[in-house]
Order: sequence, then structure tokens, then C-alpha cells
Amino acid sequence: MNIQLALDRFTIDEAVHIANLAEQSIDWIEVGTSLIKEYGMESVKRIKEAFPDKIIVADMKTIDNARYEFEMCFRAGADVATVMGASPIPTLKTCMKVSEENNKKVMIDLLNTTQQQKEELFQFKDAYFCDHVSKDEQEIAGKVNRTEEKSYDSSLQLAVAGGITLQTISELKHLQPDVWIIGSGITKAEDPAKAAEKFKTLIKQGNGE
Amino acid sequence: MNIQLALDRFTIDEAVHIANLAEQSIDWIEVGTSLIKEYGMESVKRIKEAFPDKIIVADMKTIDNARYEFEMCFRAGADVATVMGASPIPTLKTCMKVSEENNKKVMIDLLNTTQQQKEELFQFKDAYFCDHVSKDEQEIAGKVNRTEEKSYDSSLQLAVAGGITLQTISELKHLQPDVWIIGSGITKAEDPAKAAEKFKTLIKQGNGE
Repeated sequence: MNIQLALDRFTIDEAVHIANLAEQSIDWIEVGTSLIKEYGMESVKRIKEAFPDKIIVADMKTIDNARYEFEMCFRAGADVATVMGASPIPTLKTCMKVSEENNKKVMIDLLNTTQQQKEELFQFKDAYFCDHVSKDEQEIAGKVNRTEEKSYDSSLQLAVAGGITLQTISELKHLQPDVWIIGSGITKAEDPAKAAEKFKTLIKQGNGE
Repeated sequence: MNIQLALDRFTIDEAVHIANLAEQSIDWIEVGTSLIKEYGMESVKRIKEAFPDKIIVADMKTIDNARYEFEMCFRAGADVATVMGASPIPTLKTCMKVSEENNKKVMIDLLNTTQQQKEELFQFKDAYFCDHVSKDEQEIAGKVNRTEEKSYDSSLQLAVAGGITLQTISELKHLQPDVWIIGSGITKAEDPAKAAEKFKTLIKQGNGE
């Protein structure tokens, strides 16, 4: 089980600072889409340089131009890149191919996909699948993680994302995610280092880690 | 009728150079998603500075975090920003709101949306709707614009994009698009200035423009 710290709505310096605070308790670091669109590949490059031993996830949210975008972020230092499950299938296939060629990983964001789309996506066995409640769904529509009614085939590599707090971890544990993506639960905490430590304890306890 | 020159897979300098060549024949300039993800908002800023009198379209392909992303690109100088039609509805509503607040426009990218999704999207009457064959669908799946079987309510503000050539314009004319988005048809031409001029002649002839 890995904890992925999602860094969004920050300058690159702020992002590096926050990640430094949480570093001891997290496994993966996500360069959020907002950093990528604001600062370009410089954001991925600088965060990989600051944390060379962490897995760096570039939240590219690719939906077209897959080879160009994935090669770009892998060159910048990303270890994992995201693609939208809502993309046309040729885009997803290319993401898988380019990642394999570069010995990197794909995370498929299931945001706003239908059950039928999900079933088609699950053919990509080497990818991580991200069960994602978006920022806008949380902040505007007030939607929270309601994964208690969900289930995924246990052979899939699963990530969960979207408004996860210390209080909601227990509701998600039955999904046994491989990756827990935590953003504001750590970054907006009064003491991000301590918050990250608490997440680590709660997530990893009972897993022999 | 407007011609939007789409600039993708270039450095910012190359993009400015190509747009300079085509400037006399085009109306709008699109800062492509690949420029935004590679160089961040600097790409939008530099292209607006180079072409202050053109409408600048930031192809943000927003699918979450709508307010943050739209405000970011409008601050950088964009006049129009794109959002994926495949986004959750709260994201689309926020894009419309933020654009209205800033006296800017939204372009909704219909890529990979179902008929049902499209019908829901058409409630956003102030937006442009982009009928879009993606790069990956063209390059990998060999799909070309096949809009002869499509039709849109004539009250909608329509844009067409994806592999449009001098040869395929006639197949799209019945849609009477408000915006013709041309990328490689101009940027990869031997003489981009002359190619742009030909597009202008073909698109605007018979429209009294």
C-alpha cells in the first residue's frame, strides 16, 4: 500500500516545501494537473530533482496526443502518468504502449466513466485504476467518496482519490487500494508532517507494513 | 466564420513564428494542449503578447478544477478556454460561470461524448461546441472527419476540428461552423502563409466575407 501525496494549486516552491514536510510518511508524489498547466514540465522536473527516490506521478489527465504527452512527462522525470478513462480507446492503448516502452506505469482516471466504459478499460491489466471523486464534484456538488457500494475485481491495481480524510479512510478500506491519494487532507492540515504521519498509521496499520 | 489556427507540438518560439506566417488569413489562434502542458501559462502569455489583436484560445481541456484552471488561463491572456464535454456537469457549469464573470468564452470539446451527453451539454447555449476528431483517432485509428452524417441545431455555435484539409472542407460546409479549427493543414504545409490563404478563400468564399 502506497500513499500518494497530491500537490495542487501551489507554486512549485510551495509544492516542494509541503512534500518535504510530509516526506517521511508518503511513498509517491503527484505533480497535480494545476501545476502542470501552470508551470509545464518544469514542475515535474523540479519535483523529481527534489525527490529522486520517490515515485513521481504526473497527473497529465491525457485525453488525446498520448505519445507526445506521455513521452514529454517521462523525459521530465515522471514514473507514472495519468490518462482519462473517458478518452477514445486508441489514446489509452498508446499510453499503455509508450509506458511499456519507457518502463513506466499508467494510471487510468475513472472520473465520469460509465460502467460499460470501465469494463472496457479493465482490459489494461498493467495499469492502475483510479476511483476518483473530482474536486468540482466535492466542492460544487458536495459529493463525497461513497465507495461503500462499489467493488472492484481484486486482481486490479486500484487507487482511490478525492477528498479522503482521516475520518473517511475506514469507509474505503474494504476496497484494499494499492494507492491512497491524499491531497488537502495533508496539504491543508495545520501540521502537514503530523497529518501525513497519521494517514500512514491509519492506512498501514493491520497490513503488516 | 472564423479560422482558428491550432498550434501543437511546437516550442513557443516556433508557434509564434508559424502564427506570424499565417496571421493575415486567420482569425483566432489556439495555444494547443501540448504547449500548455509543456510550457505552462507562459505559452498563453507569450502568444497573446505576440498577437494582442487576435482571439486567443487556450486548449486547456479542463475536466476538473474548473475555476482554478479557467481563471489561470484568462489571467494569462486567453479569450476562450476549452473544457471537455466528458466532464462532470458541475465542472461545465463552473466553466460557464467563470467565463461569464470574466467576459470570456467557453468552448466545449465534444470528443468521445455520447449522444445523451451531447444533449445535456447543449443547455450551455453561450458556449461554442467543438465537433472533434482527436489526433489519436486520426493517427492511430485512421479515423477522419465524417461529419456528413452529423447535424447540429443551427442555433448552436459550432466549431469543427481534427485533420481538416483543403480537400475535406467541402464535406463540412453543410454544418456551417462558426469556427474552423485548422492545425497541420497549415502548420505542416510547405508554405504555411499560402496554405492559410487557401483555407481562407475556400472557407469564406460564398459567405460574403
